[in-house]
Amino acid sequence: MEDTAAAVETPVTVSTFGVSRHPDTARLVLSSPKPPGVREEFVGAVRKAFRPRASGGGGAGRTPPARWGWALTALQTVFPVLQWGRTYNFKLFRSDVMAGLTLASLGIPQSIGYANLAKLDPQYGLCKHQYFSFVAQKQLNFLLIFPERFLHHFFCYLLCGHRQDTSVVPPLIYAVMGTSREIAIGPVAVVSLLLSSMVSKIVDPAVDPVTYRALVFTVTFLAGVFQVSFGLFRLGFLVDFLSHAAIVGFMAGAAIVIGLQQLKGLLGLSHFTNSTDVVSVIKAVCSALRDPWHPGNFLIGCSFLIFILATRFIGRRYKKLFWLSAISPLLSVILSTAAVYATRADKHGVKIIQRVHAGLNPSSASQIRLSGPYTVDCAKTAIICAVIALTEAIAVGRSFASIRGYKLDGNKEMIAMGCSNVAGSLSSCYVATGSFSRTAVNFSAGARSTVSNIVMSITVFIALELLMKSLYYTPIAVLASIILSALPGLIDIKEALSIWKVDKMDFLTCLGAFVGVLFGSVEIGLAVALAISFAKIIIQSIRPQVEVLGRLQGTNIFCSIRQYPVACRIPSVLTIRIDTSFLCFINSTFIKERIIEWIREEVETSDEKARERVQSVVLDMSNVVNMDTSGLAALEELHKELACLGIQMAIAKPGWQVIHKMKLARLVDGIGEGWFFLTVGEAVEACLANKAGNALECC
Amino acid sequence: MEDTAAAVETPVTVSTFGVSRHPDTARLVLSSPKPPGVREEFVGAVRKAFRPRASGGGGAGRTPPARWGWALTALQTVFPVLQWGRTYNFKLFRSDVMAGLTLASLGIPQSIGYANLAKLDPQYGLCKHQYFSFVAQKQLNFLLIFPERFLHHFFCYLLCGHRQDTSVVPPLIYAVMGTSREIAIGPVAVVSLLLSSMVSKIVDPAVDPVTYRALVFTVTFLAGVFQVSFGLFRLGFLVDFLSHAAIVGFMAGAAIVIGLQQLKGLLGLSHFTNSTDVVSVIKAVCSALRDPWHPGNFLIGCSFLIFILATRFIGRRYKKLFWLSAISPLLSVILSTAAVYATRADKHGVKIIQRVHAGLNPSSASQIRLSGPYTVDCAKTAIICAVIALTEAIAVGRSFASIRGYKLDGNKEMIAMGCSNVAGSLSSCYVATGSFSRTAVNFSAGARSTVSNIVMSITVFIALELLMKSLYYTPIAVLASIILSALPGLIDIKEALSIWKVDKMDFLTCLGAFVGVLFGSVEIGLAVALAISFAKIIIQSIRPQVEVLGRLQGTNIFCSIRQYPVACRIPSVLTIRIDTSFLCFINSTFIKERIIEWIREEVETSDEKARERVQSVVLDMSNVVNMDTSGLAALEELHKELACLGIQMAIAKPGWQVIHKMKLARLVDGIGEGWFFLTVGEAVEACLANKAGNALECC
Repeated sequence: MEDTAAAVETPVTVSTFGVSRHPDTARLVLSSPKPPGVREEFVGAVRKAFRPRASGGGGAGRTPPARWGWALTALQTVFPVLQWGRTYNFKLFRSDVMAGLTLASLGIPQSIGYANLAKLDPQYGLCKHQYFSFVAQKQLNFLLIFPERFLHHFFCYLLCGHRQDTSVVPPLIYAVMGTSREIAIGPVAVVSLLLSSMVSKIVDPAVDPVTYRALVFTVTFLAGVFQVSFGLFRLGFLVDFLSHAAIVGFMAGAAIVIGLQQLKGLLGLSHFTNSTDVVSVIKAVCSALRDPWHPGNFLIGCSFLIFILATRFIGRRYKKLFWLSAISPLLSVILSTAAVYATRADKHGVKIIQRVHAGLNPSSASQIRLSGPYTVDCAKTAIICAVIALTEAIAVGRSFASIRGYKLDGNKEMIAMGCSNVAGSLSSCYVATGSFSRTAVNFSAGARSTVSNIVMSITVFIALELLMKSLYYTPIAVLASIILSALPGLIDIKEALSIWKVDKMDFLTCLGAFVGVLFGSVEIGLAVALAISFAKIIIQSIRPQVEVLGRLQGTNIFCSIRQYPVACRIPSVLTIRIDTSFLCFINSTFIKERIIEWIREEVETSDEKARERVQSVVLDMSNVVNMDTSGLAALEELHKELACLGIQMAIAKPGWQVIHKMKLARLVDGIGEGWFFLTVGEAVEACLANKAGNALECC
Repeated sequence: MEDTAAAVETPVTVSTFGVSRHPDTARLVLSSPKPPGVREEFVGAVRKAFRPRASGGGGAGRTPPARWGWALTALQTVFPVLQWGRTYNFKLFRSDVMAGLTLASLGIPQSIGYANLAKLDPQYGLCKHQYFSFVAQKQLNFLLIFPERFLHHFFCYLLCGHRQDTSVVPPLIYAVMGTSREIAIGPVAVVSLLLSSMVSKIVDPAVDPVTYRALVFTVTFLAGVFQVSFGLFRLGFLVDFLSHAAIVGFMAGAAIVIGLQQLKGLLGLSHFTNSTDVVSVIKAVCSALRDPWHPGNFLIGCSFLIFILATRFIGRRYKKLFWLSAISPLLSVILSTAAVYATRADKHGVKIIQRVHAGLNPSSASQIRLSGPYTVDCAKTAIICAVIALTEAIAVGRSFASIRGYKLDGNKEMIAMGCSNVAGSLSSCYVATGSFSRTAVNFSAGARSTVSNIVMSITVFIALELLMKSLYYTPIAVLASIILSALPGLIDIKEALSIWKVDKMDFLTCLGAFVGVLFGSVEIGLAVALAISFAKIIIQSIRPQVEVLGRLQGTNIFCSIRQYPVACRIPSVLTIRIDTSFLCFINSTFIKERIIEWIREEVETSDEKARERVQSVVLDMSNVVNMDTSGLAALEELHKELACLGIQMAIAKPGWQVIHKMKLARLVDGIGEGWFFLTVGEAVEACLANKAGNALECC
């Protein structure tokens, strides 16, 4: 092994390489067991998926192997709260309460703002405090006549009665089912925008608000159902389809689009476009500005935006004051509402939420339309919302889980999120998911479990019950400024730059998503990002690298001579590594022709030095994990063409599937069982020995 | 290196492994040069593509480095005939003439049949023998008035005058431009069907035959233009998109569909469906059979079909009689025409070609419609026809080139084929390509160069000029039987079975194409095949294998313990190989979580044997050729999570791009420069040494 490179030159000293061919390696290669087939792998995956796990999320120990152990395990699998709940103590609870309260102070104004963004009038989601008295009276009448009707209404009340907004019901459901401890569930900007822009295309909310609301709940319901089924069928990988780069671009584009949408509120405009692309929005703003508008809206919006951003800056600077940044949106709402009420500014053009007393929400369970003309459109919207919501939630959950050092179960998260949304859709909520900004606040505030979500949910409920009426005078411009203040966090220029630095193709994905969202629509942006991402994988497969290997002097290590210029090629043996994991129809011809071309070049240029003519080709197949029939055909043709040129072909390090398929296709017999090797070194040695043998024969 | 496995157990004797870490290997890994960027690779590819090659197709030697050498080289690149023409001799010419004559005898009846299949009435493509006299007279008049008009007509005559059919012009063009020596150019069944089924959807040939013909020529022209541009932009890989398995399924489906279409001719039906799917065709046949039909057609068709198949069987049995199978279609046409003429069977219900004297063909150059309502549809059809035609031609050309042992230049082939079709479209030809059956006949007949195509083309021309009138009485049923006789060769059940045996996913592609063509349409079949093929690549990337490696006893070879059960895992070191060539967004999370899960399992199950607890993880990255930012992020997170568990991570055999991107993302600094290794053996040794060091520290 330690001999000099000079030994390589003389084929007679081949055995002194010390490559120490293990006596059985060739037999090992050919006698490896059959790799698991498609059926076995599928069955294995299913069995593994549904095997109850003893050790799950929280810090709990093993469950005792009791008689009812399996039932408990199953219950714990569905409701992780049963697992971590047993070790939950007062200290953890105190942290959670603090975090929940902080979260609520941020959640209330944000939720109102996002409902606005989703084109659900904020009062719609907020005002139902008269509901109880009304329903209660109705219930009594019903109870006397239709008991089952009462039960239905009672259930609706339980689930839907406090349907203040999306910050109430989904977090409660998530709290008992989710595996993430930090995630804060509620409405988020991007999903709100996506939902409103897609549903607006089906029904214009300005023309038919009732149908629009019904469709929003239908989409939420279907999105929940899709999420649950993703989880049940273990399609957790679907959220990976949106790569990090795509999300960066998508979020930045969405943030700008959302920001532009806020111009309506910020400038107090009455008419605005339903389109989300930059061009239409700027056109709409320009045409709207020609009409008289009241600068008061803009003044209020800007001043509170500056206030919120300033508190955030302080919160970041002095870690202890972070609660300031968390409550500043709530403070803004309170201050601005008080100011407007005091000055009666709404009489002078300042737009206010106003329609708080509009009337009774019908139970949204009855609004869900699972049949009718819009169902297909709703399902399409729902599947996109479901995936985007999950992508955001799981990305958020994972990043915080990795900080805390525990593992998030993607499939379980999906089921929890889906159940939250199904329950939400029955209670006048729209699609909820994990919000990055609020999760960060929750984490900073010291949340230790999903109990903080429960505290937040209850706080929001109580606060809204109490403060409902006062929201009448809240200026819309403040809601706009609250949404605007959340947007800079969505635009991550630093990350985009680092993507550009590391991977140009990824940057293209990022840019595609960004431009698509900005100038097309949210769906176009997503489609562009997905198309570029998948094209990237296909392109990677179409033109794989084929590397010539050389030996590092004094070792038996073979590596690419392009990557390691110090590596030396072995004379008369061409060692080639195929750098693709799937030798298939789109690359096998390319690889075959590239190899043939090399050999022709070698043969043509080495007419003089006949001694150094290539006599053997060693194919290092270590990187090829799988191949299809086209790959096999290419190898067979390569072998034939090499045989025509009088060149021996040897296969080194074939993968499991590769050797199995070569056996099936009888290619092993074609090449010869003796020409399969476990390492490149052995293959080269055998080729050199063969050459020496040939040379002796010639003599 | 030869020590026993016992040495592995005691970390103190680590150095006795004899792994012989090359002093510089770690530095080598990190100091490898920057891999070529996207720009360099692109520039390199372009330069290589347009570099004139001294050694081309034929058996010719090197060109002398003359003053006008570059011009000759360029001309030779475009017209390979200039290269092989110089060594062409009488012996080769004799072979080619024989082959050409044999080919013509097969080509004439097949071409008439396929024109029928393309819904171009055969007489339309065949009858123009009065053209010359008519045009000549017209020319004289024109010559006196509009000389340029005369030139135009003369050119049209030269190119288009003998526009008998697609077997005349395209082969002539191909003969001077193509690189394949055996391929026989002309109309083929599948392209004829594709063209007619797609153009029929735009314009019904029964309703508006003039527009239909114009569109066929337009599609042919555009297909030629697309093929030339594929060649110029070196998009040769496009033909690889249809995998072998897809072609097998597609051809079988197309053959059945074509066969069913022939029922019209075979049964002498007057009305038939334009749809190509099995269900519509069977319905059409059933409804047509209710009307009275003449069994004479069926009788003639069947008897000649049996005759052709019998001669083919004989030709296969006795190699010397293969010419019998080649001329049997022509013989059938002559015999049946004579028989019908003699018995006047056309008066008794036997359908004949008849309309031979229908009138003058307008010059097809003026029929090409590059603007107008159908252009987009035509372009769509053209691109599909262009790809299918090229796929068939290149598959055929490659298989025969590999038998003769020379290389086909895919891009050059595309340009030649495209020019043939552009010329063809100007001369009332439709899309021509390399026909498998005729190429096989050409090869068997001993063709040595494309001269056989020229001989065939001239023979067909002369034969048609002479025999034109006699074709009036040719029964349509014979044309159907000629097409039917060519179909069994398209259905390759043996190949389909071998695909099933080797690769189930490939069989699915095959089946998808087959079922799609049979029950949907030709385009649906293609779309299904493409979708399954690309899904296969994506699926392969989504769930890559992650293998635990073990050491083969007594060697320093590490291999998968699943593939080689004799390999032993190293205690306290978990060695993992990532089996994907592109560590990217759709698989990085999966891989990371799989590794973390393994480590957690290891840690949980090995509480007792604390000594054997996993203390290091070696990632064998040899298979990872490239990664994107998601892959980098996953590695970074993996490193962090392992660090949390107190486990050291080492990277072995990183690829070129991988190490470059890890450097860019500063991940190399994160993991530590000392933890990058050139081989798995070195990495394991270093991990064991580290463990020993830790153990000593503890002591």
